[in-house]
Amino acid sequence: VKLASDVDLRKIAAMTSGFSGADLANLINEAALLTARENKDAVTMKELSEAIERVTAGLEKKQRVLQEEERRRVAYHEAAHALVAHVLPDADPVHKVSIIPRGFAALGYTMQRPEEDRFLLTRNELCSRIQVLLAGTLGEELVFEEISTGAHNDLERATELARSMVTDYGMSRLGRVTYRQTTSSGLLDGGAGTPREYSEKTAQMIDDEVKYLIDELIEGTRKVLFEKKVGMEALAKKLIEVEVVDAETLAKLL
Amino acid sequence: VKLASDVDLRKIAAMTSGFSGADLANLINEAALLTARENKDAVTMKELSEAIERVTAGLEKKQRVLQEEERRRVAYHEAAHALVAHVLPDADPVHKVSIIPRGFAALGYTMQRPEEDRFLLTRNELCSRIQVLLAGTLGEELVFEEISTGAHNDLERATELARSMVTDYGMSRLGRVTYRQTTSSGLLDGGAGTPREYSEKTAQMIDDEVKYLIDELIEGTRKVLFEKKVGMEALAKKLIEVEVVDAETLAKLL
Amino acid sequence: VKLASDVDLRKIAAMTSGFSGADLANLINEAALLTARENKDAVTMKELSEAIERVTAGLEKKQRVLQEEERRRVAYHEAAHALVAHVLPDADPVHKVSIIPRGFAALGYTMQRPEEDRFLLTRNELCSRIQVLLAGTLGEELVFEEISTGAHNDLERATELARSMVTDYGMSRLGRVTYRQTTSSGLLDGGAGTPREYSEKTAQMIDDEVKYLIDELIEGTRKVLFEKKVGMEALAKKLIEVEVVDAETLAKLL
Amino acid sequence: VKLASDVDLRKIAAMTSGFSGADLANLINEAALLTARENKDAVTMKELSEAIERVTAGLEKKQRVLQEEERRRVAYHEAAHALVAHVLPDADPVHKVSIIPRGFAALGYTMQRPEEDRFLLTRNELCSRIQVLLAGTLGEELVFEEISTGAHNDLERATELARSMVTDYGMSRLGRVTYRQTTSSGLLDGGAGTPREYSEKTAQMIDDEVKYLIDELIEGTRKVLFEKKVGMEALAKKLIEVEVVDAETLAKLL
Amino acid sequence: VKLASDVDLRKIAAMTSGFSGADLANLINEAALLTARENKDAVTMKELSEAIERVTAGLEKKQRVLQEEERRRVAYHEAAHALVAHVLPDADPVHKVSIIPRGFAALGYTMQRPEEDRFLLTRNELCSRIQVLLAGTLGEELVFEEISTGAHNDLERATELARSMVTDYGMSRLGRVTYRQTTSSGLLDGGAGTPREYSEKTAQMIDDEVKYLIDELIEGTRKVLFEKKVGMEALAKKLIEVEVVDAETLAKLL
Amino acid sequence: VKLASDVDLRKIAAMTSGFSGADLANLINEAALLTARENKDAVTMKELSEAIERVTAGLEKKQRVLQEEERRRVAYHEAAHALVAHVLPDADPVHKVSIIPRGFAALGYTMQRPEEDRFLLTRNELCSRIQVLLAGTLGEELVFEEISTGAHNDLERATELARSMVTDYGMSRLGRVTYRQTTSSGLLDGGAGTPREYSEKTAQMIDDEVKYLIDELIEGTRKVLFEKKVGMEALAKKLIEVEVVDAETLAKLL
Repeated sequence: VKLASDVDLRKIAAMTSGFSGADLANLINEAALLTARENKDAVTMKELSEAIERVTAGLEKKQRVLQEEERRRVAYHEAAHALVAHVLPDADPVHKVSIIPRGFAALGYTMQRPEEDRFLLTRNELCSRIQVLLAGTLGEELVFEEISTGAHNDLERATELARSMVTDYGMSRLGRVTYRQTTSSGLLDGGAGTPREYSEKTAQMIDDEVKYLIDELIEGTRKVLFEKKVGMEALAKKLIEVEVVDAETLAKLL
Repeated sequence: VKLASDVDLRKIAAMTSGFSGADLANLINEAALLTARENKDAVTMKELSEAIERVTAGLEKKQRVLQEEERRRVAYHEAAHALVAHVLPDADPVHKVSIIPRGFAALGYTMQRPEEDRFLLTRNELCSRIQVLLAGTLGEELVFEEISTGAHNDLERATELARSMVTDYGMSRLGRVTYRQTTSSGLLDGGAGTPREYSEKTAQMIDDEVKYLIDELIEGTRKVLFEKKVGMEALAKKLIEVEVVDAETLAKLL
Repeated sequence: VKLASDVDLRKIAAMTSGFSGADLANLINEAALLTARENKDAVTMKELSEAIERVTAGLEKKQRVLQEEERRRVAYHEAAHALVAHVLPDADPVHKVSIIPRGFAALGYTMQRPEEDRFLLTRNELCSRIQVLLAGTLGEELVFEEISTGAHNDLERATELARSMVTDYGMSRLGRVTYRQTTSSGLLDGGAGTPREYSEKTAQMIDDEVKYLIDELIEGTRKVLFEKKVGMEALAKKLIEVEVVDAETLAKLL
Repeated sequence: VKLASDVDLRKIAAMTSGFSGADLANLINEAALLTARENKDAVTMKELSEAIERVTAGLEKKQRVLQEEERRRVAYHEAAHALVAHVLPDADPVHKVSIIPRGFAALGYTMQRPEEDRFLLTRNELCSRIQVLLAGTLGEELVFEEISTGAHNDLERATELARSMVTDYGMSRLGRVTYRQTTSSGLLDGGAGTPREYSEKTAQMIDDEVKYLIDELIEGTRKVLFEKKVGMEALAKKLIEVEVVDAETLAKLL
Repeated sequence: VKLASDVDLRKIAAMTSGFSGADLANLINEAALLTARENKDAVTMKELSEAIERVTAGLEKKQRVLQEEERRRVAYHEAAHALVAHVLPDADPVHKVSIIPRGFAALGYTMQRPEEDRFLLTRNELCSRIQVLLAGTLGEELVFEEISTGAHNDLERATELARSMVTDYGMSRLGRVTYRQTTSSGLLDGGAGTPREYSEKTAQMIDDEVKYLIDELIEGTRKVLFEKKVGMEALAKKLIEVEVVDAETLAKLL
Repeated sequence: VKLASDVDLRKIAAMTSGFSGADLANLINEAALLTARENKDAVTMKELSEAIERVTAGLEKKQRVLQEEERRRVAYHEAAHALVAHVLPDADPVHKVSIIPRGFAALGYTMQRPEEDRFLLTRNELCSRIQVLLAGTLGEELVFEEISTGAHNDLERATELARSMVTDYGMSRLGRVTYRQTTSSGLLDGGAGTPREYSEKTAQMIDDEVKYLIDELIEGTRKVLFEKKVGMEALAKKLIEVEVVDAETLAKLL
């Protein structure tokens, strides 16, 4: 399978995160088929995008059968994401909430205006993104008292964003200095890169700062969820009932 | 041997853990044979599953001859696993307990409802899993006073679960931050990944938290074993006698 | 594609920083084409340079559509760069400021006399370069109160320069000793290099010194921007209006 | 040379430890020869075992000529191993003691019931193994006052066992947590593994615990040797005289 | 290109330090050409040496055009090197000073009796070498007050020498123990080597000792330059005028 | 060039330590030639040994021309080695002392009974070896006041021996525990090994112990040299005169 020069692997990787090895193999097959059908000799971005849609659709079909208790939990989890995204002024607006399992890891999802359209993000916008991510696990906690493994991906992405604020964007008390974990100079070395150049003490200050940022944002998110608990419950119940809720219905419920 | 695109290597790896190199070679041979017999040109998940069953069965046959004292120890070890799994409300129910050696490392096993059917695990469910794992060594300790090397695999898995609770799921006093040991971005780098990004002090806090979690769960498990020692002994004796005990018999004994 | 012996990969890498993988592929194609057209059998520096210009031009064409708010922010960001470069006596003079997006990462740029013409840089000249780099984010802060992700590249380069002053050029309180992160002896090993040879305490002193340098230079840059805020605003507004401002206009505005 | 699927490389590696590169080459040659003679097309465990015996035998023949003083030292060293193995209740019984040099590193050996027959080892059994290993150097010390390089292999294995008790089997004051140095998930990565995941402080606690364990076991072993010094000397003298002593003679002497 | 067995890659690497990738490619071409012309089938040391001379000559021709201010700085820098080499009793005598740029990194050079003729260096001789290396940056500082990036290579080599005195030659307060950064046993492993074997505390003591050595030698060098400032200025002015100064003229000027 | 199975690479590596790359190439050529001449199809140990002798002889011929001062220093350096080897009861007797440069790094040598004949070394014998190694630099110090780079190899080997006493042989205050820098399990992994498993604090204790051992042995060696300074000077002068001194002459001189 030859790739055309317009293929941006970074984008593909982003669109297929959560795919299993088998899903990726299917994706390549689909794209190769589409390319052959159009008599092209290299797979372009167009074929790849279409293939991704098909595979994703296929994945939606062979629905995982969640147990009733799990399904309830997923509903509250997504409702909390959607609620916080709806309420925070700097968060991207919600288009759709769903508890139909998709892909390898996602048991539900809350769709917002895609990130790709933005070139700059302000500090407040980043904080709002983190709060939306944290909302899922905090919602579970509020309703079920104990949390579950379902928030792993959210927590990982929230931690990554907070870490970027500290190490890449100069948005923390560590100041306008960047801290690189590894570096690769691209064309000249084969991507091997160098190990992190900062000291242990700096690594520790970064850890503390990331924790501080997350803890602060948890505080704010908890407050939002607590105040709007009624709305969240309405949305969760709606989700259990109809599985997918669009922007309009969402606005009415909250 | 070509693999069909539906083969999920992760699943295969999970199902063959404990296989020796020779066992794995047998597995590949069996699967290739089954594929040839059905005139397929790639090994699918179906052939692999059947091959795994055959190899495992073969392994069961060439029984290791345990010494009498070792066999008694294994019986109490498995009885303790089964007892705790039976008693804890959040543990998966026991289907079968056996002291017939199997594969490379397992001298006996306690079968519970397979993990694969669950998509989410709550904090209590994870704790129960750890307690079931710890029960084996604690049972040996209760009966024989000194423990043995037989609990190695249990302890390793218990430690891994506890570590995941701390570093992946935000279920400890370290909060809703994730801590990655290594990272691989999948499609873009060849799985090389980056070394751990957190500091020594954080590593130490993680170690302390894992130890704290395990120590607390040991406390609770010891109490269960102590209170139900009579049942454990009945089960162990039954196992020594008949080697395999099913769910029904188990329920009667405890 | 064969490379002629006059090709300096280091230069090419410098000229294509920020190119995406697809951009680089285009570059190679263009250069190969130009080489074929001139019946040469190896790509020389000449073809590569021309190819870079074409690809860059192509990138300028397919303009990214920034949102209005983002465009305003970019204008102030670039105006701040240009203002500080214009004011500091040891900074290279500004030739052109633009808010036309270019390449993968640059949403705007301030062009100064190219670095390649200089063989030596004094301590003051290095400090001025860092101040020009820092000016973008400080300008955003002055006008919009919160900063954005747009300064990432600037901060990274400023940190690198400050780090070089400490570890390579003996220009800090750590004295005339050099501190190597990794070493590669070129011809003899395949570029593998050795891990850093200095101690943790030294690494920490380097971190502290880099932070101290940057913090001091931020102080001075903030003062410049505050005093000349009117000029910066005039320039930013001009940029929003006409997108590109040349040296002459700039001088008149400030 | 093709290997049959029944070949367990782990076992082979264990049986050939101490072989030089040339010894290993001889081994492969012998095994290939035996396989060819039997018209098999892959070397099985049977041929390999026979080849190992032949090579070992060959190694025994080309005896190293020890100096008289060295020979005496080896005799006391082995006598101490044998004595402690004979005396400790949880140690495996001694079959044969020899001071005929064998292989690359062994100047003598004490043969006990082979480990391969055991599936579980209790804490006491592990401690006894360590004490038997330590006995050699402690015996030298008792008789010659200064120790020699001959105990290197013993000390290494004793340290490894003690470390396993701490990190793998939960048999120390560090509790029922496992500590992995590196991890390899077998089928999925090429054995590359991950670096150790525990912190420096934990590494230090492990070191301290290993040292504590060894020091305690040295105490006990010294006492045994001191009390039975007469028996050890009788055995050493016998060894110097006849080179090999079997279980029966040993029992009479001690 | 085949290399004859008399080619000492270490020597070649030393003679071509500072060559760019393109320079090295030219070098190989020239050597291959010379070898072909003499009908040899392998490049010997003779052809390589001649090729190096030609390439170096070529590099001298395409002179870099320094700015006037840079040229003055280079002249003082080299004059300081030459002065200190001339004055210190244990330094190698100066043959030639030049401010004609050469190769990739050298904007000027001070030629002393080549190192290759010496087999042993005493502590004083090593200290003198370091002082000659430090002189360039200290001369710049004395005349221009601020220093420049031009001393990077000098500082790196001075640091390396000082580090060798501490870690390889037992010439510091850390005593007659050697400290290896990495080790490679040559024939047996592919040069992979082992990571440093000493502790963090030792690494810190080495760093401190290197810094102490350099600081002490800076003190002495500054004194020399201060006392002989008139001579240095005379030499620098001569260099600006005629570009190259030989040993005789140098002696007259100082 | 094919190697016969009797070739022990470890031995070859030991016999060719100090060879340059070119020397090694010559060695291979010589061995191949000798093998061809005898119509063998694989190089055996016999050809390799003869080739090593020839190459070494050739290296002796193309004598390095030492400067007079350097030659004197080498004479005292070797005289000190020989003196201490002669005086210490546990050191191997001296056969020959020479100041004819040989191989890549050796400017002179003191030949003792080869190590290969010994299988065990006692603690005292190891200490004596270290003292003989240290004697060279201490002799230089006694006579010339400042030391030279000529002792590098001696110091490295002395440090290695002392480190082995601490980490491999249980001969220090760190007790009968072994400390491995890296481990390679030979047949099973490709020699990759694992990074050191002990903690920073342990690494520091090892460093301190190695330094303590060396410092103590320096003390004793200095005393010997001081007391027998007259003998050392006689031997050094003889060496300057005749270049090689045998055991008999040595005994008469001291």
